[in-house]
Amino acid sequence: MKKILTGAALILTVATGFALAEDAPFSKEIKARQGLMNINALNIGILAGMAKGETPYDAAQAKAAADALVAVYNLDLPMLWPAGSDNTANPATNALPAAWAEGSDIGAKMEAWEAAALAMQAAAGTDLASLQGAMEGLGGACGSCHKAFRASN
Amino acid sequence: MKKILTGAALILTVATGFALAEDAPFSKEIKARQGLMNINALNIGILAGMAKGETPYDAAQAKAAADALVAVYNLDLPMLWPAGSDNTANPATNALPAAWAEGSDIGAKMEAWEAAALAMQAAAGTDLASLQGAMEGLGGACGSCHKAFRASN
Repeated sequence: MKKILTGAALILTVATGFALAEDAPFSKEIKARQGLMNINALNIGILAGMAKGETPYDAAQAKAAADALVAVYNLDLPMLWPAGSDNTANPATNALPAAWAEGSDIGAKMEAWEAAALAMQAAAGTDLASLQGAMEGLGGACGSCHKAFRASN
Repeated sequence: MKKILTGAALILTVATGFALAEDAPFSKEIKARQGLMNINALNIGILAGMAKGETPYDAAQAKAAADALVAVYNLDLPMLWPAGSDNTANPATNALPAAWAEGSDIGAKMEAWEAAALAMQAAAGTDLASLQGAMEGLGGACGSCHKAFRASN
């Protein structure tokens, strides 16, 4: 192999290696969207830790975590959820076919999630009581979608 | 366990479970930032596939992939890279201590990455030749940072 790769050659090599290593259907989309969920879990963990009194309330940190929830929502990457990318196509995902089925209310659930994230964004930096008050709505929005469209694991 | 959990209780349970399962230092930050890299890999793979002629050029899809690179950059989540979250603290990451060391030029490298992503965003939807022309800069920006600050694996 050539010792010195140009940038373009390097990235093509990386992309090819990635493609070869990820042959299961929708693997790249699944890894990418699980990444988004990990980012949300990190930020929700920060907020939940404060809500429960496990970590001291820090207005700036709480606001940053809530801002990040909204920023991730605003990424709006529908390409990560192509039709058919469910747990019958690839067991690496827990996404149920119901999410894509006729009559699925995932759109309404996503809107509820956005509203809950925006409410948390407005509350998190105010004070601990406000943060705690917004936590139930946020948890409800997470849980509503997970219960309907995520296989238990 | 109570059969019916309120949203808040549910999310606190989830967050606690998450914290218990992720005791290694910076595990949550590392998983979250690896998620961002997975999203970038997906989008760069789409662009590289077209650049190499493996997949047909599709202006809208190319533009969406490039837009997503910029959107991920714009997330601007410095909380995912806390000082000390390197591969000496947790082998789950390949991030080298050099990234955080005195004199590290990671800031300049991030700016070069932003410029390359913006150049790709401007080029990707134009035509295949423009996309191919922007690929070298993008690959160079990826590779420059990976070579300096990522352990080979």
